[in-house]
Amino acid sequence: MKRIFSITNLLVLLISFQLIAQTNSIKVSNISDLNNAIKSSKAGDNIIMANGVWNDVEIKFYGKGTKENPITLTAETIGKVTIEGVSNLKLGGEYLVVNGLYFKNGYTPSKNVIQFKIDSEKIANHCTVTQCVIEEFTQPDRDVSDHWVEFWGRHNTLSNNYLVGKSNFGPTVMIRLEGNENIYNYHLIINNHFGPRPRKGGPHGETIQLGDSGTSMTPSHTLVANNLFDQCNGEIEIISSKSNFNEFRNNVFFESEGSLVLRHGNYAIIDGNVFIGNDNSTNIGGIRVVNTGHWITNNYFYKINGNAFRSALAVMNGIPKSPLNRYNQVTDVVVAYNSFIDCKSPWQFSVGSNVSQSDVLPATEIRSARPERVVVANNLIYNEVPDENPIVNYDKVDGVTFNNNIINNENKSEVKPEGLITEAISVTEKSINLFVTNENRNNLYEGFDFETITKDFFGNTRTSNSNNIGAIVNPVKENAVLIDKTKFGTNWFDTNNVLKSKTINVSTSEALIKALKEANAHDIISLKKGTYKLNSSLLINKPISIVSANKNRRPELIFSSDKTAFEIYPKGSLTLENLILTGNKSQNTFTTLDKNMSKAYDLFINNVEIKNFKSVLEVSKGSFADTVSVTNSTVKNCERGFMLNKETNDGGDYNAEFVVFNNTTFDNIQEVALDYYRGGYDESTIGGNLILKNNTFTNSGKSEKDSILIKNRGIVNVEFSKNTFKNNPVKRIAILWGEKGQEPGENTIINSGKIEVVQNLELKLMY
Amino acid sequence: MKRIFSITNLLVLLISFQLIAQTNSIKVSNISDLNNAIKSSKAGDNIIMANGVWNDVEIKFYGKGTKENPITLTAETIGKVTIEGVSNLKLGGEYLVVNGLYFKNGYTPSKNVIQFKIDSEKIANHCTVTQCVIEEFTQPDRDVSDHWVEFWGRHNTLSNNYLVGKSNFGPTVMIRLEGNENIYNYHLIINNHFGPRPRKGGPHGETIQLGDSGTSMTPSHTLVANNLFDQCNGEIEIISSKSNFNEFRNNVFFESEGSLVLRHGNYAIIDGNVFIGNDNSTNIGGIRVVNTGHWITNNYFYKINGNAFRSALAVMNGIPKSPLNRYNQVTDVVVAYNSFIDCKSPWQFSVGSNVSQSDVLPATEIRSARPERVVVANNLIYNEVPDENPIVNYDKVDGVTFNNNIINNENKSEVKPEGLITEAISVTEKSINLFVTNENRNNLYEGFDFETITKDFFGNTRTSNSNNIGAIVNPVKENAVLIDKTKFGTNWFDTNNVLKSKTINVSTSEALIKALKEANAHDIISLKKGTYKLNSSLLINKPISIVSANKNRRPELIFSSDKTAFEIYPKGSLTLENLILTGNKSQNTFTTLDKNMSKAYDLFINNVEIKNFKSVLEVSKGSFADTVSVTNSTVKNCERGFMLNKETNDGGDYNAEFVVFNNTTFDNIQEVALDYYRGGYDESTIGGNLILKNNTFTNSGKSEKDSILIKNRGIVNVEFSKNTFKNNPVKRIAILWGEKGQEPGENTIINSGKIEVVQNLELKLMY
Repeated sequence: MKRIFSITNLLVLLISFQLIAQTNSIKVSNISDLNNAIKSSKAGDNIIMANGVWNDVEIKFYGKGTKENPITLTAETIGKVTIEGVSNLKLGGEYLVVNGLYFKNGYTPSKNVIQFKIDSEKIANHCTVTQCVIEEFTQPDRDVSDHWVEFWGRHNTLSNNYLVGKSNFGPTVMIRLEGNENIYNYHLIINNHFGPRPRKGGPHGETIQLGDSGTSMTPSHTLVANNLFDQCNGEIEIISSKSNFNEFRNNVFFESEGSLVLRHGNYAIIDGNVFIGNDNSTNIGGIRVVNTGHWITNNYFYKINGNAFRSALAVMNGIPKSPLNRYNQVTDVVVAYNSFIDCKSPWQFSVGSNVSQSDVLPATEIRSARPERVVVANNLIYNEVPDENPIVNYDKVDGVTFNNNIINNENKSEVKPEGLITEAISVTEKSINLFVTNENRNNLYEGFDFETITKDFFGNTRTSNSNNIGAIVNPVKENAVLIDKTKFGTNWFDTNNVLKSKTINVSTSEALIKALKEANAHDIISLKKGTYKLNSSLLINKPISIVSANKNRRPELIFSSDKTAFEIYPKGSLTLENLILTGNKSQNTFTTLDKNMSKAYDLFINNVEIKNFKSVLEVSKGSFADTVSVTNSTVKNCERGFMLNKETNDGGDYNAEFVVFNNTTFDNIQEVALDYYRGGYDESTIGGNLILKNNTFTNSGKSEKDSILIKNRGIVNVEFSKNTFKNNPVKRIAILWGEKGQEPGENTIINSGKIEVVQNLELKLMY
Repeated sequence: MKRIFSITNLLVLLISFQLIAQTNSIKVSNISDLNNAIKSSKAGDNIIMANGVWNDVEIKFYGKGTKENPITLTAETIGKVTIEGVSNLKLGGEYLVVNGLYFKNGYTPSKNVIQFKIDSEKIANHCTVTQCVIEEFTQPDRDVSDHWVEFWGRHNTLSNNYLVGKSNFGPTVMIRLEGNENIYNYHLIINNHFGPRPRKGGPHGETIQLGDSGTSMTPSHTLVANNLFDQCNGEIEIISSKSNFNEFRNNVFFESEGSLVLRHGNYAIIDGNVFIGNDNSTNIGGIRVVNTGHWITNNYFYKINGNAFRSALAVMNGIPKSPLNRYNQVTDVVVAYNSFIDCKSPWQFSVGSNVSQSDVLPATEIRSARPERVVVANNLIYNEVPDENPIVNYDKVDGVTFNNNIINNENKSEVKPEGLITEAISVTEKSINLFVTNENRNNLYEGFDFETITKDFFGNTRTSNSNNIGAIVNPVKENAVLIDKTKFGTNWFDTNNVLKSKTINVSTSEALIKALKEANAHDIISLKKGTYKLNSSLLINKPISIVSANKNRRPELIFSSDKTAFEIYPKGSLTLENLILTGNKSQNTFTTLDKNMSKAYDLFINNVEIKNFKSVLEVSKGSFADTVSVTNSTVKNCERGFMLNKETNDGGDYNAEFVVFNNTTFDNIQEVALDYYRGGYDESTIGGNLILKNNTFTNSGKSEKDSILIKNRGIVNVEFSKNTFKNNPVKRIAILWGEKGQEPGENTIINSGKIEVVQNLELKLMY
């Protein structure tokens, strides 16, 4: 209740200061004037940055405003002041407001783009950053770690901003708690739009992290409310809560590949959030629970199909007497009044149990401590298509009490608690994806402190007369929506960039090179039939397609330089269709930049013949492909195939998220056909992902020193079926990882090595 | 401030309910009537237990009182209702008061004497136990663990009680926090007198423990205030705080051998307490700090001479990423405005650093994480006799900031911070042990949140005009005292039992046996010269002395039975002086009971000749001697000497606290002269203690299977000097433990084995 008032106060404050500030406006147009204005600023001042590009600026905004008269730093015209180049912003002092700045085309020279601290003597308190955009302000080198917003001090606010496209190491927003000045902080992260964060291929890609294990005993009291997390796919933890007493209310997690994770720290409140998945993805998760005393209420889960770590509700096993940075036991957690609509096996307990791996892991890594004193009550599970296994258990479920939960199909799970009751339930879709039971249900379970759950998902009052299982109590307002987009982000930035692509027809090598240079992102270059001789690399620095004008008559690109055929830049996304690529054995087909591969790239190859190259794909260590897909193609007479094996820090990172080979033939590849590597014992990434189906491998691997045809060490998800291996002189075709459920499907093996399955893989411990 | 009001409210409540309750008094005189009265009790009832002995009763006091009208269970006459035998008391419900019960001559059949919970459905909230005494209500078997008062629920109070003499396993008072019903408990432990708790010889002898490592992340908010801890010697932790947000205010720790330890959990407040040591003891400690965010202010330390774990202020090193039950790093701790008067090396940092033991300990036991972000400011160190080493450091001191601390002699410690300033200070002893600077000091250090330290030791206001370093601001009230005894304990129990002893003269065996039986505790039996033939054991079940009437003419006691000469019972304390004890080689000289050695015993032997026995001392596993002292005596022609080696659980326990041999001759002992054992790697006990000085050992050890004359494995404190060893056919005289600072002094060794020093001893890990 107190919280609601303080947000209201803030809004009033934001409106009111603008009126007051008119009288003390100081307009500045360069960094020197800005520094002077800041230096002489006093409460009530409004420093106005002139429209235009502010390049290579490091702004230290220090001042002492008051609650009634803050000091404001604002754009002359919202959105027309861009901070570019090697730039950042630090705030220190009290009651400062930063309004409407646009960070793009650059990156920070320090550890943070926006930092609520100038130095240890100048920490920010009661400061606000609002109506700002940070767009792809990402380090050139993905391995360089930074945060876009780093909180220090107390009572600071990040509201109504749009942050999108962080590709490098490090959480987008970080709360720091070292030092008594920074605890009991009551920060507000509210009404922001967190736009897509690309897949990262390794840990440290959280969108918000609140503390770390070293400060996980501190009281934080940060409120994360009314934000949209829009395809935040950076890693398995969208939000990683690592401190105490944090609250997560009324946020929307939209098709984000990860979960809201209570990783360290205790006594979090997760109330009234929406988790939206879709039919196809198993990467989109819900809430993952570790530690003690959390209350998870009034949340709405829709089409969450993730499993284990990514299940709608994942309650983990802990490590007995866990080290500070590992997994504490789950105790005293309440999960009540949530709705799980069309989710797959939404309740998973003892997730992470790894007793079976005692041989390869030290005792301090074995999660054998089951959840204790957990109450799961008054929840609704509704499935359009029956889900026979609503509960998955990875260990005994002896510390969880189920009370008065309702499901609309029979529970055939191994665990069949009396407190999960099958009942016919009728629901209505009131608005998009908003399913509500047609009638309220009485006789609810009343557990300890349950009387404190006074509201439902929409903030309507729960009373003994009017209450219901699940997140929503009837009646629901006529115009109720699950996602109210007006709550999120700035009032000026258009997040819907509609892309229009054109097709450029070419028939000569010169025209191809020119078209590639001049094309806009997402354009299609269409080649007439014939031969294209190229003696330099083709540069791929945007999304582009090169296709045959006629798919039955494939043009041939013949490369004569010893440089790579295609040089791939950050954000290069190359689609090749219906082509023949021919090398002279002195060059690779595809190569990334050696360094500064700041953003992910893609490679989509369909119905292409690739022949006479050294390697087909060679990447650099810091590079990351979201997807490498090869379908209906032929690769032959090359030294090596696809080499995604340069990220060898063994810190959980890897060079590609999705690698797909389907219906493709590899013939006469001298060494390895694919080398796809991930090192380090880490679970914050559940990647990479390899699909290898319906392919044919012949006469390959004879010069491969380890005598393995396909290397996939440490890759977590592997499908390996319906391939044919014939006359490959290797000992082993591949080694699969049994503990991750990998097994060869029906493959045909003739005069080749064998497919080996190793149950437990010994990996370098990261912690 | 809020806290002070609630205590006041409570007192008002206690006074007021007695007036109200007059109208609903129900007197009961047996357990059946009591049960009925409880069953039908309602708010405002006063159930009166009739005077007399209530034997073997298990009282379950359940009811629902109200704040204004509690239900009371009270003694007809305070102190005249004794609960004896196998008895206990459980409370459940709301607003209950237990008043004036006296527990003695018995023990609990369950895990607790008084438990604030009947079962998981009937937990106590807002209940009070007051004016009660628990006196030596201790388990017959010391190894059986129990608590005398166990807290569950919320808002319960233990006030104005006297608890004395717990000898067995388990903290006297325990706060339990498992389950959400028991957190945020705001319990009050106030105005109690914790009388002497005997030395225990091993861990688990705390006087108050607040939670355990498994619940150390929970918010407790227990207040421990205005209590007297009077020679609470149970173990190295007088109070063990293992949960969050606990407060320790205005308590007196009087000559208690241990410390107030912030063992697990964070954000404790330790304010306004008194720690009183004495000139002689190095076992009496102050405050030991582990973990994060504690504020230690306004405390007064007087003559604390302990070292390391027992120093006045011990700030520990932590284990990096410590397991839940080990040692977290110290961070963000404030130590301000404390007075250290005549203490020895009061500030010790990185206590417990054990990097040098990496060979014998696993990495998870190595305390290498130094304190960080610790502020030590505005403290006073005053020494009558200069203490050149006020600071002891066991590692680098790089994470501690010293500001404006004053000492009255030169600091010659290795660490010489600028913030510890030498200055002539004049002080006055205002009343006993209360030393106050004659003038206030200005220009105090103002750290983060220091403005919240608004009071001094006496509750006087600190202002910018009137403030001082140390605990006390001038002016001090005329009648101010350091210890106000009227605050502590009951208003009826006399804790000063004055002991009067008499001397009984005897001259025959029969008279000796009769006198021993009939004597009162502390009597002296004086033997005339001559011979006393005894064919049964002498039973020692109280403090008793058997001495010679004439110390130059020693009477001889000749034992002919094969039973032990002296059979020692719990609380037996036997002093023998100027005697000759002669066996027939078929019996031991001293033997404890086989079991139920519920309390400690002592053995003081001076100028006694002991000859022709099997073992001199044989003890049982559960037995514990506070002191075994042998001086100016002779032991000869025995198979074995003193066998204190039966506690072999390797859980840190041992069979005797102090073992002293001085100026004593051992001649012709076939096997070991002393076997004194302690097993297990544990630091909650800093024992046992062996002094072996000025003794002579001859012709001994020849049948000892390990070929060692004196065994002292695992004993922590050993003095070993000025002894003479002659013609003992053993390989080794003894093995000393180098890491604990043990080294042989000047001993004379002739034709005997050698004294070996082993640096690091490999012990069984207990955690």
